[in-house]
Amino acid sequence: MSGSPQIYRASTTAPVNIAVIKYWGKRDTTLNLPTNSSLSVTLSQNSLRAHTTASASESYSGDDTLILNGEQEDIKSSKRTQACLKHLRSLRADLESKNASLPNLSQLTLRLVSENNFPTAAGLASSAAGFAALVRAIADLYELPQSPEELSLIARQGSGSACRSLMGGFVAWRAGTKEDGSDSKAEEVAPASHWPDLRALILVVSAEKKGVPSTAGMQTTVETSTLAPARFRDIVPKRLQEIEKAIHDKDFETFGRITMQDSNSFHAICLDSWPPIHYMNDVSRAAMSAVETANRKAGKIIAAYTFDAGPNAVIYHLEEHTHLVAGVIKSILPWIPGWEGEFGEKIQPNEFGGLEQKALMTLKTGVSRVICTGIGGAPEKIDKHLVDEGGKPVSL
Amino acid sequence: MSGSPQIYRASTTAPVNIAVIKYWGKRDTTLNLPTNSSLSVTLSQNSLRAHTTASASESYSGDDTLILNGEQEDIKSSKRTQACLKHLRSLRADLESKNASLPNLSQLTLRLVSENNFPTAAGLASSAAGFAALVRAIADLYELPQSPEELSLIARQGSGSACRSLMGGFVAWRAGTKEDGSDSKAEEVAPASHWPDLRALILVVSAEKKGVPSTAGMQTTVETSTLAPARFRDIVPKRLQEIEKAIHDKDFETFGRITMQDSNSFHAICLDSWPPIHYMNDVSRAAMSAVETANRKAGKIIAAYTFDAGPNAVIYHLEEHTHLVAGVIKSILPWIPGWEGEFGEKIQPNEFGGLEQKALMTLKTGVSRVICTGIGGAPEKIDKHLVDEGGKPVSL
Repeated sequence: MSGSPQIYRASTTAPVNIAVIKYWGKRDTTLNLPTNSSLSVTLSQNSLRAHTTASASESYSGDDTLILNGEQEDIKSSKRTQACLKHLRSLRADLESKNASLPNLSQLTLRLVSENNFPTAAGLASSAAGFAALVRAIADLYELPQSPEELSLIARQGSGSACRSLMGGFVAWRAGTKEDGSDSKAEEVAPASHWPDLRALILVVSAEKKGVPSTAGMQTTVETSTLAPARFRDIVPKRLQEIEKAIHDKDFETFGRITMQDSNSFHAICLDSWPPIHYMNDVSRAAMSAVETANRKAGKIIAAYTFDAGPNAVIYHLEEHTHLVAGVIKSILPWIPGWEGEFGEKIQPNEFGGLEQKALMTLKTGVSRVICTGIGGAPEKIDKHLVDEGGKPVSL
Repeated sequence: MSGSPQIYRASTTAPVNIAVIKYWGKRDTTLNLPTNSSLSVTLSQNSLRAHTTASASESYSGDDTLILNGEQEDIKSSKRTQACLKHLRSLRADLESKNASLPNLSQLTLRLVSENNFPTAAGLASSAAGFAALVRAIADLYELPQSPEELSLIARQGSGSACRSLMGGFVAWRAGTKEDGSDSKAEEVAPASHWPDLRALILVVSAEKKGVPSTAGMQTTVETSTLAPARFRDIVPKRLQEIEKAIHDKDFETFGRITMQDSNSFHAICLDSWPPIHYMNDVSRAAMSAVETANRKAGKIIAAYTFDAGPNAVIYHLEEHTHLVAGVIKSILPWIPGWEGEFGEKIQPNEFGGLEQKALMTLKTGVSRVICTGIGGAPEKIDKHLVDEGGKPVSL
């Protein structure tokens, strides 16, 4: 009499990444091929991470399933998720066909369970971390020999920016030129250890309403913005070269300036789209004003804002300037949740004038929480599983 | 014994114009030569006008003077004003040299008095109306034979957009290509009588602070925006052709769409400037949202927003759609001053849903007055003088 069928499990955590050169526009919507290369900073998983367990077993039957933050997701009708699963299964099947002793995991139903340690509603690029964790966990379950770079081709099909969450530090997503997308993948530009004192302060802003979803918004831009072609063709490639050099040289002033300029350029082509797309609001602009004030007071660029497809501000700065950047924000918003986090408790509130009253009030009323984090590493394999030994989903 | 020296006087009113293809950027800052052509609608002088009296007399001595809204202006150090006065004087001197019977007005001190019938602080392009009135009044005083087109070359040197306020209806300012600016002048595309039912509803928004002055802002854009060159070179020339055709065809849908797109394009290159320039705020965006809602409800473009270098919304619509555009705004903001004006009293408040609560609240708290006006004519010579028969400034 045989025992119960084995439950195969692998778990991973994957980070959020925040682009400094933005991805906005696809040249191929099925393959998620971008109109331009992009570059991001991987953030610490202590603050923000997706945690995913992939499991397979002969005891599972029916369709693959994904439970995300306790809710059953409809992955059967998600072409993007299906594309990832199909690609990973075929790589596993290749292994199995070459080595008959391997269990036929490629044939088994997958049970996937994922949790974020931050609210999805905060608009913090959760899909990037989610798809990176999904791909990494299944690749580990299948014991695939593929490198993160090769896996990034798969994660890209789930969510474009997910490809950048498979590596730590500074990660470029090279747009590539091939029609089949085989050269459109992520590449580590520098590891987190290259510039470990890079910090990110996130101001979470309550949006008055959910903005245009990025998948739809970016195609509106591609189809209608008359300013966008120059960005795709000339402006971003030039900026990417400059910012890669700045990263290699640890030149924060250049890094910061380009980060801010590229964020503004991205929101400019959104505004130039038809119908126009707005993600920033007056709270976002008050955050820009706070950064500009800090830089003016310092006499150089010590802080850099960037905004994704929502009103949240991400402010990059160096550890050495924490008191002049995060400290100032802490003095404006001392009661906001989040200062108890990773780097937050050490920050001394630092009052300074110069920020006009209206911007102060706008920040005080518009920011709902802060996240004090910094640059971080690649996805990590962990042994905390979200599926128990009997194959049941568990919540941590 | 001779009597007192004669007081020569001429008075004019000049209109405000609101561009639908925006002027933003100079290729020559001394001559006020623009990077691109622009096109505006001249607004009715019943609602918004500058009223200027130019006077000259042998009894005046010393420097030329300008009293603007009761305050003595320092025109001696204003290169732009001096350029206008010098140019006008030289044209008068030409006349005098050819006709010895003419009084030598070109040799006399000028006493200029000007009043706007709207607050300068409202950010309503008062300098355009002001310089147009100044040039027109002095040209009348000097009995210059030059056409409005020729005078526009002079007004342009005072304030670029002033050249468009010398004519009524739809006015193009052709950028020209000559280095000396002799082909950079205004031209009437169509008179007000061509499309007399065009209305403009202005929502005056109290700015949290005065934005970057346009003279400085536009040069920041020219020098730093990487998106702007495409706008100057390709986008505006194409749009100008399209909107001129739409005006000739009285095609409001195309006129409205291009008007909104060009406003957005202008604010996009502002955001793309370094440092970035913001003129619109959340109230402006709520006004955009109200226009988008009205258009969605109508199933076609019946209203078009445009924003200059400030947060005020100007909403163009046709008389036949007043109830669907201005009527809706009146039902949201019935207590706001301004409905008692030119076209405002006839407007029936028209409640409609669809505009989200947040945008409604933002409009209710952020709009300080409305101006209900419409397309209007060229400057008018009037006999109400702001200088009395004895040469003393008077206020009406």
